[in-house]
This record gives sequence, structure tokens and C-alpha cells, in this order.
Amino acid sequence: MRLIGKEEVENIAIGAALLGTGGGGDPYIGKLMAMQAIEEHGPIKLIDIEELADEDMVVPSAMMGAPTVMVEKIPSGQEAIESFKSLEKVLGKRIKATMPIEAGGVNSLLPLALAATVGLPVVDGDGMGRAFPELQMVTFYLNDVSTTPMVLSDEKGNSMVMNTINGLWAEKIARTATMEMGGSVMNAIYPMTGRQVKDSSIYRTLSLEENIGRTIKEAKTKKRNPINEVLNLLGGYKLFTGKVIDIERKTDGGFVRGTAKIEGLEKNKGENCYLDFQNENLLAKTDDQILCMTPDLITVLDTETAMPITTEGLRYGARGTVIGIPSDKKWRTPKGIETVGPRYFGYDYDFRSIEELNDRGEK
Amino acid sequence: MRLIGKEEVENIAIGAALLGTGGGGDPYIGKLMAMQAIEEHGPIKLIDIEELADEDMVVPSAMMGAPTVMVEKIPSGQEAIESFKSLEKVLGKRIKATMPIEAGGVNSLLPLALAATVGLPVVDGDGMGRAFPELQMVTFYLNDVSTTPMVLSDEKGNSMVMNTINGLWAEKIARTATMEMGGSVMNAIYPMTGRQVKDSSIYRTLSLEENIGRTIKEAKTKKRNPINEVLNLLGGYKLFTGKVIDIERKTDGGFVRGTAKIEGLEKNKGENCYLDFQNENLLAKTDDQILCMTPDLITVLDTETAMPITTEGLRYGARGTVIGIPSDKKWRTPKGIETVGPRYFGYDYDFRSIEELNDRGEK
Repeated sequence: MRLIGKEEVENIAIGAALLGTGGGGDPYIGKLMAMQAIEEHGPIKLIDIEELADEDMVVPSAMMGAPTVMVEKIPSGQEAIESFKSLEKVLGKRIKATMPIEAGGVNSLLPLALAATVGLPVVDGDGMGRAFPELQMVTFYLNDVSTTPMVLSDEKGNSMVMNTINGLWAEKIARTATMEMGGSVMNAIYPMTGRQVKDSSIYRTLSLEENIGRTIKEAKTKKRNPINEVLNLLGGYKLFTGKVIDIERKTDGGFVRGTAKIEGLEKNKGENCYLDFQNENLLAKTDDQILCMTPDLITVLDTETAMPITTEGLRYGARGTVIGIPSDKKWRTPKGIETVGPRYFGYDYDFRSIEELNDRGEK
Repeated sequence: MRLIGKEEVENIAIGAALLGTGGGGDPYIGKLMAMQAIEEHGPIKLIDIEELADEDMVVPSAMMGAPTVMVEKIPSGQEAIESFKSLEKVLGKRIKATMPIEAGGVNSLLPLALAATVGLPVVDGDGMGRAFPELQMVTFYLNDVSTTPMVLSDEKGNSMVMNTINGLWAEKIARTATMEMGGSVMNAIYPMTGRQVKDSSIYRTLSLEENIGRTIKEAKTKKRNPINEVLNLLGGYKLFTGKVIDIERKTDGGFVRGTAKIEGLEKNKGENCYLDFQNENLLAKTDDQILCMTPDLITVLDTETAMPITTEGLRYGARGTVIGIPSDKKWRTPKGIETVGPRYFGYDYDFRSIEELNDRGEK
């Protein structure tokens, strides 16, 4: 166990935005909420997955909805607390800890704000190791952890407890309810025992996020190249450097979908890169070559500052470096690829790993 | 208390279709389910509202969704039982009785099937005295009875418990969830004490439905005019007699909306009648005169047999007699008119009662 204060939250926010592959919402809102909760209630206890007892009840907390809506409809924090109280009643058990469901901007940080407010520890792990747009796209699901009972709460005071036959139904029903409830809600979801967390989570995500943030900041202080430093840390690839020259984006069925076109600069001069996203970046390609595909991570960093740019933050003229990072091996299993691979998102490609696609010594 | 067997169910089905004002779903499905439940479990206990103890917990049971979907997606009966079990768990109390939420085809009869199966009595009353398309359109709502906690269950095994800040939010969220869950679900809704049932219900609806069915059948046996007999029983008006010559109908947002055009016959020769519906018939008018408007009841009876015709049953060439019946006085209060009057449904008319509109001695 260690304590997380404001400086750690600053770093986690940067790392979460990077692992968030463009999605997961603007980390700024989550950061503000976590900061304020720390100011009011003191630092947050971060516990390692190994510290959980097998019978402890752990409940991830997450915001659901289109990131573009989240930005305009800031949660009060009360929704998350209400969701947890309702779920404790349904489960008939005390919840011992919370954790992020994903490594994505706002959803890495909201569990910290909740934890500080209600005095629970946060587990150092998550269910994606990155961000994904749908509820069943978690490693918990790959291990047959039930998505429900889950609770959705909105800022107006409406809530619902759902029990569904599987995670796909949970996603379908919760998504439409979320739209009706104003476009974003707080979920208490995937209630798990400590044993299930140990078997099905991605480990030490928050520590990794913190490390990413610190690495980028320190590289700048030491006048070293922050993008290269962070790629070394993550075993990642520099895929493309250029300037955003076109961006199509629409909010549709609870998601933000679109494509960004990036015109090459430096050694990519003369080429174009196309980045497809559905909340998160899913596919990066040039005119004649695929560079990286889901579930491997695709993130755009500001070429100057190395700060991650979310899909909402992509603007005409922005100078970005597209990086790719190998996904956790849990995602590269047959069930993992079926759940979050390119075909699930409608691409007519078999999954090929970033290592395979970028076998050109550029790592 | 009295026992309800198959003959009573036959008559109730006819009366429910008539009071259902074209909506509430095909009574045939509800009748089959109630009949089968009686065969398996014996007759159903019908209790008067006055027989309830003030502290008894009563939970109405209803199907929600577009009637056109209900006809094709027959409930198994298990959904209603699951909804009741879940709600008992949430309430922490045993449910003592069920009742219909509305006097409409399928929704008058499904509570009978549920009651027979689980061995609960049915309360002789309902929350509309007719049928209406939305969850908050009940006299319980006029008395500030909370719509939630409510439970929705589908035939696949998905369910949700909702808590909303008011009945309008319950309607909004449950309606979209219903669409996602396949277009129709079973609800356990408006949990009430015996005291609340006494204060806010419409009394003896099932007995009235039975009486309507018996009156129509007996008139035919005695070679008397069944339409006149039933109008005498209900204090209703014969509004128009004719032949359906056009019908527009679409399923939209969980509702069936449309208009039927009826060409006059007999003393209405040379006139046309237009019938607007949204699941239920809402407005009847001729080219130059309004005949009846919601919340007063508008029903089409087969001119030959006096059997009620639902909006799904309206077919080109059908010979129908449009009748109108004054609504319960609870609906004619300012809050009643605000909730179910013509303006709620988008008509630019103030409510005028059928008595006022048909002041031509034709009763």
C-alpha cells in the first residue's frame, strides 16, 4: 500500500491519457475531481492486487457515455457514491476497494476521486490496460466474470440496477439507457472477489500511468526526447510524424466515431496517415500500409511536448507523432481478438501485431 | 372475494378490449395465458379494493411495449414472476396482491395469469379505467404514488430495477430499455400500500369488464341490439357508424401511431370520421366537428357483432361503430387533463367532455 497525492495524480493523468489511445474522456475533468477529493479528504490508498484477500469484494467504477458529452456534463461525484451504495445493498456485502475499469483519461481518475471521498483504497490495476468503447471489452469478461449486477446513476438522481444474461446485453441495454439519461452516467460494474481480480485483471496500471507521466516530465527537465523515453519505457514504436489536415467526427449511438488524416512531416514527408477511431483509436494506416490495429495501442502525442492528444483534442494543424504499443497478452488470445480485434469493429482484417507490422527496426 | 374461472375470463377479455380504446394489445394472448394458468392452478381470487388492509403491499403487473410487437413475442409468464421476485427483494416485503395497471386488452388479463400461477389474489381495480400509452398515465401518478422501484424483465432473462426521480423519467428510461430488450417487457411497477390503492385507484374495473362482456353476449342471445345495451350500461354515446376506407399506421419510438378514416353509413352517410391513435384511440372527429377526445374513451365496435376492434385489428372495409364513453372523473381534474388531455398528445385543443361535444340527445 502507498499513498497517492496531488503530484502522483498529475502524473497518472498524463499516463492515463497516453494509454487511453485517444479515448476515455478528457483526463482534465477526472484530475480536477481527484485533486479536489484529495484536498478535502487527504491522500488515496493505492493497494497492489496481491494485497487483496481472495474473499474481498472489489467493484470497479466508471463513467459511461460519449467523451464529448462528458466534457460538458461534469459529474458531481454523488452519482458514483449512489451507485456504490445501491450495489452494496444488492450484493448484501461491504465493498472493500474500487479500481478503474480502463486505463483511459477520465476513467482512470474518477475511481481515485470516489476512493478519496468514501475512504476506500484503489486497486493498482484495471480491466483493459488501455481504453475501449464497450462494457464487455474488459479482461474480466475474458475470464467470465459477470458484468452484472451493475448500477447506473445519473446526476439527476435516476438510477437502475441491471442483471443481464451476459456482457453484450449489459452493453446494449446500458448504452441506450445512458443515452436517455443525458448521454453519460456513472457505473458500478463487474463486482468481483479479490480472487477474480487476481485472475482477470491487468496489473499495476496506475503505477505504469504514473511512471509514464513522470518519464515525460523528467525527460523535458533533462532536455532529453520525451517521446523516445516513453517509447523505451513501454516497448513502443514511433509510427508516423505529421500534421493533422482533416478530421471527421460524429457522435452516434453513444460513441464518437471518425477519422483523422495526418500529412507526413520529417521522414514521413510525402506520405499520409489515416487514424480511425470509435471513442478510441482503432486503426492507423498509410496509403499503402497498415501501421497498427486494435487491440494494440495507438496514441497521438504532441510532437513538441509529448503530451497525449485525445480524439476530441485532435485539431486541424496539430503536429502529432503517432505511436503504437503492444497490447497486454490477454488481448492477443482468440477470445481477446474476438472481443476487441479488428473484425469486431467492422474491419475486414485479421489481427496482426504491431511487432509483425513494423518489422523495420524502428523500435 | 370471489373466484374467477374461464367463463369470467372470456367476458373480461371482451370488456377489456372495449375499455382498452383500441390499445392495450390483443386481448387474445392475455386470455390464452389466463385460461392456461386457471387450468393448471385453479380459479383466481378476485378481491375488492375495500378488502385490502391499509398496510398490504400491492404491485401492479403490466406488459410494456408496442402492441404490434406483443402479438409476435408472446410472453412466457416467467418474466412476470421474475419481476415480482426481484421487486420483493428490493422492497424487503411480501407482495400480498397484484392488479392491472390499465383496462386494456392484454394488460387486464396478464395480472390474472400471474395471480393464478403464483397464488396471489387480484385486486378488482386499475389505474386508468381505460388504456393509455405511457407509464405515468395512471391515477396512481395523480396521487403522487411513486412509479419506482420498478422492475423490467424480458423473456431472455435480462432484468433491471429502476429508481427514478419521477414517473416521466421512469417512462423515458424504461421505454428505450424496452426497445433495446426486443420491443416488449414485463413490468412490476407502482408498488403501493393498501391505503394508496384505496386512495388512488379506479374501482371495480374487472367486474365492469366482465359485465360488459356478459351484456354483449346476452344481448345477442336475446336478439337485442348489443351496442345499445352496452351503451346503456356505460352511459356512452354512439358517435359514428361507417366503413374503414383508409388506415395509416407506423411503429415509432415504441408506439403504434396512426389515423383511420371511416366513411359514413346509415345516418352518417356522406360524412367521414377520422380516428387518431397512439396505441390507444385519442381523438375522433368528422370533417367539421370533434366527437370525442382523450381522456374520454373512444372505441370501435364491429357493427354486426358489437365486438371491440383494436387499432391493430382495424382493416380496410371493416364495418365499425365508433362509441364514446365519459372517462373517470379523476382524469377530468386539472392534473388529469395535464397528464392525458389532448395537449399532452400534441393536439391544439382544450379538453371538452363527450357530454359537452355530443349535446344532441343521442345518448
